[in-house]
Amino acid sequence: MTYAAPLADMRFALREIAGLAGVAALPGYEHAGEDMIDAVLEEAAKLAGNGLAPLNRDGDKVGARLENGVVRTAPGFAAIYKEFVTGGWNSLPFDPEFGGQGMPWLLATGVQEMWQSANMGFGLVLLLNQGAIDAIQHHGSPEQKATYLPRMIAGDWTGTMNLTEPQAGSDLGQLKSKAVRQGDHYLISGQKIFITYGEHDMAENIVHLVLARTPDAPAGVRGISLFIVPKLLVGADGKPGKRNDLRCVSLEHKLGIHASPTCVMSYGDDGGAVGYLVGEEGRGLSYMFTMMNNARLAVGVQGLAIAERAYQQAAAFARQRVQSKDDASAAPHPVAIVRHADVRRMLMTMRAQIEAMRGLGYYAAAQIDTALRHPDAATRKETQTRVDLLIPIVKAWFTDLGNEIASLGVQIHGGMGFVEETGAAQHLRDARILPIYEGTNGIQARDLVGRKISRDGGEAMRALVAEMRAEHSRLATLAGDDIAAVATGLEAAANALDEATGWVAGDVRGDGRAAMAGSAAYLRLCGTALGAWVSARGAAAALARLASREGDAAFNEAKLVTARFYAEVILPPALAQLGPLRAAGRTVFALPDEAF
Amino acid sequence: MTYAAPLADMRFALREIAGLAGVAALPGYEHAGEDMIDAVLEEAAKLAGNGLAPLNRDGDKVGARLENGVVRTAPGFAAIYKEFVTGGWNSLPFDPEFGGQGMPWLLATGVQEMWQSANMGFGLVLLLNQGAIDAIQHHGSPEQKATYLPRMIAGDWTGTMNLTEPQAGSDLGQLKSKAVRQGDHYLISGQKIFITYGEHDMAENIVHLVLARTPDAPAGVRGISLFIVPKLLVGADGKPGKRNDLRCVSLEHKLGIHASPTCVMSYGDDGGAVGYLVGEEGRGLSYMFTMMNNARLAVGVQGLAIAERAYQQAAAFARQRVQSKDDASAAPHPVAIVRHADVRRMLMTMRAQIEAMRGLGYYAAAQIDTALRHPDAATRKETQTRVDLLIPIVKAWFTDLGNEIASLGVQIHGGMGFVEETGAAQHLRDARILPIYEGTNGIQARDLVGRKISRDGGEAMRALVAEMRAEHSRLATLAGDDIAAVATGLEAAANALDEATGWVAGDVRGDGRAAMAGSAAYLRLCGTALGAWVSARGAAAALARLASREGDAAFNEAKLVTARFYAEVILPPALAQLGPLRAAGRTVFALPDEAF
Repeated sequence: MTYAAPLADMRFALREIAGLAGVAALPGYEHAGEDMIDAVLEEAAKLAGNGLAPLNRDGDKVGARLENGVVRTAPGFAAIYKEFVTGGWNSLPFDPEFGGQGMPWLLATGVQEMWQSANMGFGLVLLLNQGAIDAIQHHGSPEQKATYLPRMIAGDWTGTMNLTEPQAGSDLGQLKSKAVRQGDHYLISGQKIFITYGEHDMAENIVHLVLARTPDAPAGVRGISLFIVPKLLVGADGKPGKRNDLRCVSLEHKLGIHASPTCVMSYGDDGGAVGYLVGEEGRGLSYMFTMMNNARLAVGVQGLAIAERAYQQAAAFARQRVQSKDDASAAPHPVAIVRHADVRRMLMTMRAQIEAMRGLGYYAAAQIDTALRHPDAATRKETQTRVDLLIPIVKAWFTDLGNEIASLGVQIHGGMGFVEETGAAQHLRDARILPIYEGTNGIQARDLVGRKISRDGGEAMRALVAEMRAEHSRLATLAGDDIAAVATGLEAAANALDEATGWVAGDVRGDGRAAMAGSAAYLRLCGTALGAWVSARGAAAALARLASREGDAAFNEAKLVTARFYAEVILPPALAQLGPLRAAGRTVFALPDEAF
Repeated sequence: MTYAAPLADMRFALREIAGLAGVAALPGYEHAGEDMIDAVLEEAAKLAGNGLAPLNRDGDKVGARLENGVVRTAPGFAAIYKEFVTGGWNSLPFDPEFGGQGMPWLLATGVQEMWQSANMGFGLVLLLNQGAIDAIQHHGSPEQKATYLPRMIAGDWTGTMNLTEPQAGSDLGQLKSKAVRQGDHYLISGQKIFITYGEHDMAENIVHLVLARTPDAPAGVRGISLFIVPKLLVGADGKPGKRNDLRCVSLEHKLGIHASPTCVMSYGDDGGAVGYLVGEEGRGLSYMFTMMNNARLAVGVQGLAIAERAYQQAAAFARQRVQSKDDASAAPHPVAIVRHADVRRMLMTMRAQIEAMRGLGYYAAAQIDTALRHPDAATRKETQTRVDLLIPIVKAWFTDLGNEIASLGVQIHGGMGFVEETGAAQHLRDARILPIYEGTNGIQARDLVGRKISRDGGEAMRALVAEMRAEHSRLATLAGDDIAAVATGLEAAANALDEATGWVAGDVRGDGRAAMAGSAAYLRLCGTALGAWVSARGAAAALARLASREGDAAFNEAKLVTARFYAEVILPPALAQLGPLRAAGRTVFALPDEAF
């Protein structure tokens, strides 16, 4: 049940795969030197391992509770949240103009991984606040920024996202909450569901961002506007004062993330909650989209994080649990199950995919920094295109893997994995929300095929394929069985990705229905193939380190072996998704609706 | 949350794939004619749908509780169990000499699927009782049979299996419970864990089958004996009397199957529980193995059953939940999500694999009947070999799919799937035990490779491959795109299975370590390939029915389309497990233990 941030692995991914040096060289990140980054990572690791991780079990068992309209968070949560605020952890990547530390998203992503591994139920309050800050930073008025951002960036106040209504889930065009203009503000009324940390006892104020419809607005998504609706109205002195007309009416009873209060929020029961329009009327949904990349990357990182946590727990169990003799030895005495082939196969499967996710996730974060800060506009634009392409893959592939890996963690524990006291099952329960929220993984696959590949005919993906091929050419010159196997895998991955992308791009030039039927297969193929790419880059770096005797030899050798396992064991079934991708459209719509 | 037994699908699998007519023609099954079987299925469907299924949610929510040493089962369980007993449902497949109905295991398997779909937490008491009956029937003395079997077969008394101890899970050789001879009985002492329905309030008596070690017995598995240890000692009048020295000291708090009490049992706290030796000393574990095939088939069927339940719930939700417009239409209004490509892809994935599992599971049950009852000894022996080969595949593949399909069920529900009230999450939680108990799926893969393939060099599997090829030859003569695609898939499946088996058989002639590292990949390939076989047989039968205008045309067409989906979408990634199978051994042991 303990968690120790995998600092060596994280540093390796930051430097060798994400290109930390390049990010630190971007304008505005001059203060983010290697020493500073190392220090931040180490301090975060302490807080995650010693502070957050021990609260995770009670967060699950006790959970958040609604009592007389007040949400009590789990034991220790309010206290540790104070530590976050005083330690300045909330402000890491945000604008120094409003009190942020202006650190790279790359660093923030590494740190975020730790929070989410240590305690996902807690970590959610940070993610929602980040999303709300992003929205106000991008679209708020100067006054709104001055009023809300400093307090939210500090973490004294937290933010929420109020999108979903019972009839409007993935289809936000259906939402009905109302906003009626009254002088300088609007009166908001309606019910919102699935509001994460919609009410809690850890912060002085809660800043709700609410999507609602103005009277006479057109139907559908163009009638939706975005409002700031604070729990406590902010006075002229900038301090929270009068209670706004909104409340949490119930908490959902969920499969996992029990520590995170999932609220049903009611607005305007007493005449209307005071809300302030963000930007212009009718553009609410488009504002949401501008911060979606960061939010979806963050959810992908939650998938990585829960996988790492499950891996650490399963590996510790496998090293300790003694059961049955060793196949490789004549000795009859039982040995730790880490010696047994199938247990080891599971551990390697977890590890290889975690390393690939970390590489790709950090790479995506570095691209976000580059797209924000690069001095050259063309590079910024090109990089943004790559970010847009990667995000649905990161969100969906990582969160699917988070579930698969958490399930392997349960399996390694045997019967003990099914017993809640062990804690392995909590990771599986917590992970299960990830493929659902922040756009279901089906929506991600649809976005990938119907928007990202469709809009440029697959050009952005082919640029990635070209980089994979260039990497393969470099790898092909290196000596050794392991790297040769990694190179072979990379080549196969590039070829399959190229072929699949060509097929998808061709289909979406028509009605795209076949590509939609195969979109999940395509996304799985993309994720696994890109994972092979970052894994191969790591292997090449490890090989170079071995050659120059840099760093721990066992660590570098493990990177090489793990990349080979990925190339030979993880990759082949995913590349075979080429078949399902092409074929699914033939049968997916062949039965009448009533056959189901 | 409702369940309706899929009678048409079940009958199709029984007749067209399992060969019901052949089973009914076996000696001793003369009374199991088609009309009788139909009547039994229909009555069982009523009890499952109207009686058991509505209790499933409370079974989860309230669960079983231990109060002052007494286990109270969930609301309605004791009453419905009485209905089972009075309806004669317990006795279906058992020996008429002891009050059983002597029906085929094939029928019992279909009926079992219904109980487990409707309420897995309840259904477990039936499975454990079945295992205990099997053990006594095979290895008990005439007196033991006369004393226990009639009451257990009727269901007045239920049986349990007491194997696991804290230090002895998969490795039963480590068990420490003691049995000291005293006159005509033994005194049993020790603690057993994970004892399903070890204590409950539904039956008059509980007959524990306990593995324990006699003094001076050799270490390891050869020192283990099997004992009957009744909760209430049975008097000379055959009636339960004095309480034996055993008790349930606690219940596990589990991820799922909350209705099934998982007991820590303590034997001999007051000097020793009275136990009666079954068969000979030292043969306890080998006796367990004789009934393992039935028990593992039953657990596999639980995987099928939970998948069916999850499918029904997800399909109902997808037909009702309205969200977003239809890609295939210009109309802007939102439609039921069953119209959306990725939702439909998930439903087809569930459905195609469920049909394949049902076909293979019923086929395996029919083989068990044939191995028991066929007049020709050589056929019995040969069929038993096939059963032995199929069982680890059925157990592991079905239970892995049960989890994957229950997870798809949650996904189709979107955010509602994560909310416990919906019930979709319960199926996922319940399913998670299946790959663990009755031999973990890693143990199944080990059994498949290290015992079943190893002992005959893959001959039994090659006999199956030959049947697959013969089926392919038949299919290749049929006209139509769908059946041609199915035939192509079947051929690829036969080839991959042949090649994989050849590789495994070659490796196990050596030390077999590489084959063990790839055993999970091999098992997945085997299951999916055999699924393609039964699915193709179903498609051929459906085509013949269409040609002769037999039965419902839409039903038969759906079988054909679903088999094609299986061949084109489900099969390719699984056949690509050939790569991981061969490669895993290169890297699985390449890192030192301390690297994990």
